[in-house]
Amino acid sequence: MSSKAIAFAQENQPRFLEELKNLLRIPSVSTLDENKPDIARAAKFIADELKRIGLEHVEVIPTAGHPLVYADWLHAAGKPTMLFYAHYDVQPAEPLDEWVTPPFEPTVRGQDLFARGGDDDKGQLWMQVKALESLMAADGKLPVNVRVLYEGEEEIGGEAVEKFVHEHSDRLKSDVALVCDTELFAPDLPTLCVGLRGLVYTEIEVKGAATDLHSGVYGGAAPNPLFALCEMIAKMKDADGHILIPGFYDEVLEPTADELKAWKSLPFDEEHYRKTEVGSPTLTGEPEFPVLYRTWARPTLEVHGMPGGFTGAGAKTVIPAKASAKISMRLVPNQNPDDILEKFKKFVAANTPKGVTATVKVHSKGRAVVVNTANEFIRKANLALHEVFHKETVYMRSGGSIPIVCQFQEDLGIPSVLMGLGLPDDNIHAPNEKFHIPNFYRGIESVARFLGHLGE
Amino acid sequence: MSSKAIAFAQENQPRFLEELKNLLRIPSVSTLDENKPDIARAAKFIADELKRIGLEHVEVIPTAGHPLVYADWLHAAGKPTMLFYAHYDVQPAEPLDEWVTPPFEPTVRGQDLFARGGDDDKGQLWMQVKALESLMAADGKLPVNVRVLYEGEEEIGGEAVEKFVHEHSDRLKSDVALVCDTELFAPDLPTLCVGLRGLVYTEIEVKGAATDLHSGVYGGAAPNPLFALCEMIAKMKDADGHILIPGFYDEVLEPTADELKAWKSLPFDEEHYRKTEVGSPTLTGEPEFPVLYRTWARPTLEVHGMPGGFTGAGAKTVIPAKASAKISMRLVPNQNPDDILEKFKKFVAANTPKGVTATVKVHSKGRAVVVNTANEFIRKANLALHEVFHKETVYMRSGGSIPIVCQFQEDLGIPSVLMGLGLPDDNIHAPNEKFHIPNFYRGIESVARFLGHLGE
Repeated sequence: MSSKAIAFAQENQPRFLEELKNLLRIPSVSTLDENKPDIARAAKFIADELKRIGLEHVEVIPTAGHPLVYADWLHAAGKPTMLFYAHYDVQPAEPLDEWVTPPFEPTVRGQDLFARGGDDDKGQLWMQVKALESLMAADGKLPVNVRVLYEGEEEIGGEAVEKFVHEHSDRLKSDVALVCDTELFAPDLPTLCVGLRGLVYTEIEVKGAATDLHSGVYGGAAPNPLFALCEMIAKMKDADGHILIPGFYDEVLEPTADELKAWKSLPFDEEHYRKTEVGSPTLTGEPEFPVLYRTWARPTLEVHGMPGGFTGAGAKTVIPAKASAKISMRLVPNQNPDDILEKFKKFVAANTPKGVTATVKVHSKGRAVVVNTANEFIRKANLALHEVFHKETVYMRSGGSIPIVCQFQEDLGIPSVLMGLGLPDDNIHAPNEKFHIPNFYRGIESVARFLGHLGE
Repeated sequence: MSSKAIAFAQENQPRFLEELKNLLRIPSVSTLDENKPDIARAAKFIADELKRIGLEHVEVIPTAGHPLVYADWLHAAGKPTMLFYAHYDVQPAEPLDEWVTPPFEPTVRGQDLFARGGDDDKGQLWMQVKALESLMAADGKLPVNVRVLYEGEEEIGGEAVEKFVHEHSDRLKSDVALVCDTELFAPDLPTLCVGLRGLVYTEIEVKGAATDLHSGVYGGAAPNPLFALCEMIAKMKDADGHILIPGFYDEVLEPTADELKAWKSLPFDEEHYRKTEVGSPTLTGEPEFPVLYRTWARPTLEVHGMPGGFTGAGAKTVIPAKASAKISMRLVPNQNPDDILEKFKKFVAANTPKGVTATVKVHSKGRAVVVNTANEFIRKANLALHEVFHKETVYMRSGGSIPIVCQFQEDLGIPSVLMGLGLPDDNIHAPNEKFHIPNFYRGIESVARFLGHLGE
């Protein structure tokens, strides 16, 4: 790779940022049917750009859900093939009234770009695209073979990409995947993520009476699905956050002694984390594990929302006929999502209070993954980051879940390099999501350099 | 009273029904600010009609909340004065998609009129107005003195009417109140309600982290306000529905042996009630008390809604920064709402999990009430009902709460006659609320005859 690519990337920073803003203006929320046209618009926006910068076989691939975007460039004979992955869909922006500026009107304040998807994951997707453009524009070719696969369903379980990868493993044949959807451990600290938690996201649907009832007239005789859910949910964890679902921890694989030692040496101050990142009176969770251990390598169970009854302003004396609870579990290595789901369903069935029926619906599931750090891809990614940051790279895990990384391993037999440029305070999935603009530029350069080293 | 009034009421039934439909078309939902103009429109609609039928001193009285409607006719020298009470506000109509026809487009199907407020309470309010009209139109005068006081905040706690009654007890001086906001025990069974439960309606507001957080990144360290609420709520009742708040049952007054005996003789089939009214697999609540005892004379605690987190379709992996639970308690005679509220707050404080803070907000409160059946008002109401229904009147209690009845007793020193013409399956507070049209007509006649007997 020539230094011309880096120069090109640096000269074009203002244009790259404006393009990213245009992409962020498209509200490609994957959860809601009403945003389907936006999802389609985002996919086309990206495909058009991949074509423009010189990639081939560019295709918006329709699926049962949201489309995939595919492209490749395969003229680096004898060189490895890298599979670029990112996602162009975003989380819902609610609650809207907590955004300082509207979620789909990207706004620069200081060195940050505020918008839904700024970090997760359109900003990081655009980082990849702009690295490819810089290399192509400077050298007329890429240093390695490249395939690009972007999805629009990551925030809702990634069913379409899962099916596609499973069914087209030949077409996607590569040596390594580059996934940009994680974060730096701390500002200015080059980071590679080598572990992700898995996820089982469920919804317990509870039904009681045939219709909503007046709590004055029927209170004391009619079952209350919301109360029933509270009873069931309260039994799922003890006061210290231990999950009480029988067998839940059976398969949990502990981190290695080396990993635990490395985590201890990371610049982490629990009180600072509590104050600046969480902002709660105290932290919670299993007290016998340190915070990084808890969030990276321990499974958890969370309630995300309990639709049902009256949730507007004021008072309504209704006993709802039905209610549900959105509950997810983060999994760690060796826990099998299907096994955990079975145990969860069994627990719900065994703890359903009288008067109501409960069914468990599954929104998504995926295994945890740990990447072996002793491979040449990680070594060269490390080298690229060092050239950009001039610091030693740290290896962290993330508590989040990127099921596709597990699938690349299983269906394509390739490892993934998780090079993420987000920051811990980027507010992903929350109001006022942002992307630190210097990290956007450093990401472009890091990806370009990584490809250069891989092609040497 | 002449039989001319009854003839007038019968001849004008179609017009009365059309008028009621016009009133029902006004979405006078009291919980939401956006319906303020509708509330005002409903008040004016009623005031105009009271004026038209010949009542005097008609006034729409502004308050800090929604207006009151007052009118009187005080020319029956030497006769008792009756205070008419009803409310013109209604519950929110949500969930809208469960209505067969829109809530504010009154629709007749069979012998029922479907609309929000049809039964609770515009239909019954209009019953009173049309009884007064029939008497005035037939005889040019009323058999007793009458005051009318209608409120627009019953569904949100009735603060304005409470203040008004408390401050204007002289202006409201009467001998008895007629409250039409209850139901018949069974179709065609004339009923007087002689007991109501009280109510304390609260909202527990819980705060955890400073902002919504991603459950992957922070799950295992950040507190979850929804989970905290589930933990607190689950501790409030045992599996049999006994309330576990310390001291909650201390002041409960049991029904008399006579009452219990009378309740046992009512035509009540628990299995039929379960199937046709509740529609759940089993009934719930304290197993040592029969169903009527549980719903009429035992206090209860219900969760009505738990706003917070993500409640839309699909999945969002958010740990909400805050969440709340709308929780009400129905009270029985001798329980003091302020005392119960204190005990509830103490319980919440003692059971708030670590990592979150909880505060209790009060939406409304009111005492339970029991009316002595051995008074001439109840006797004459009984007589009127007998002439219309040709059956013995039954005395029931209602599990619902009408705090104003308690206040009439305390501030005005007068008993209330609770003559309600709703039916148990009228779906009040729920989708597809209806009013049985023959009961609307029988109610008009019963009220007119009651006034006639009172004037004798």
